[in-house]
Amino acid sequence: MHKGFVLWFTGLSGAGKSTLSEHLIRIFRERGYRVELLDGDEVRTNLSKGLGFSKEDRDTNIRRIGWVARLLARNGVIAITAAISPYKSVRNECRAMAAENCVPFVEVFANASLEAVIERDVKGLYKKALAGEIPQFTGVSDPYEPPDNPEIEVRTDRDSVETSANQILAFLADKGLIGAP
Amino acid sequence: MHKGFVLWFTGLSGAGKSTLSEHLIRIFRERGYRVELLDGDEVRTNLSKGLGFSKEDRDTNIRRIGWVARLLARNGVIAITAAISPYKSVRNECRAMAAENCVPFVEVFANASLEAVIERDVKGLYKKALAGEIPQFTGVSDPYEPPDNPEIEVRTDRDSVETSANQILAFLADKGLIGAP
Repeated sequence: MHKGFVLWFTGLSGAGKSTLSEHLIRIFRERGYRVELLDGDEVRTNLSKGLGFSKEDRDTNIRRIGWVARLLARNGVIAITAAISPYKSVRNECRAMAAENCVPFVEVFANASLEAVIERDVKGLYKKALAGEIPQFTGVSDPYEPPDNPEIEVRTDRDSVETSANQILAFLADKGLIGAP
Repeated sequence: MHKGFVLWFTGLSGAGKSTLSEHLIRIFRERGYRVELLDGDEVRTNLSKGLGFSKEDRDTNIRRIGWVARLLARNGVIAITAAISPYKSVRNECRAMAAENCVPFVEVFANASLEAVIERDVKGLYKKALAGEIPQFTGVSDPYEPPDNPEIEVRTDRDSVETSANQILAFLADKGLIGAP
């Protein structure tokens, strides 16, 4: 029905990683697929309590997500991760960790311009970050490094959730990771 | 072929949790089962770096193991945990967390007397702990709380690895969690 693989979202806060992930999960569950979502907040609660937002702590958090995602994927589960994962080097570490176990790693760049996410500001976080109330906020006071060669780039500031989701599903089906719709 | 469940070992350092786990994993892999081992050291490296051996840190470490084990088991994987997990309350938390997802939780008490593990002292840790060189060492300078009603109790100070493993396999087959040998 499907293979185990890691579907790794990366993108700014508010770029639509969670929305897209949840949309895909519904589709996968309807098809009876085994799928888990490791999103930034849930992992911070369950695996990374005590870690902050320094580069070192962020990297540690992302490595843990990568480790658990690989564990699931090598057992046939679709492991979707939806943390900002702002740094290229640690995303590539997670990719390498998956490769060690021959686990396909599909990086999805949820690309929305900073202007667009500031404009939307769904959680009101950018307003606070721009006012200096949240330190080390990705895109404002902490860097975001976009991927050079993501398997998929979706333009979440321009396209609908459905359009972006269909783009991802088409890629996965084309690679034989999931069945055709 | 098999169900997803958590096989939760608990017992003193040197009681044979890892040895028994590895023995079972070989058998399960030969049968083509999906199985993962979350052992104390591996989890401390990958999920709990920075945590120490205070009660609070130990509990956090065990909760993380419980969280990952449930994640695997609810996706059909046999998740074996082999950390000392000395405190009853947090083991029971992990049991409750599994129950939330209807994941069977099989607690295996690897029961070896303190005298026996001190006598064997495979890693030379008891010698150091008794000399006061390792603080908060379970059984010596930190408590070990045996389970009241473990699903399985194996007497690793008396029985061979094969005998104990067969006892576990028989229980699992009897409960319909794995196929008959």
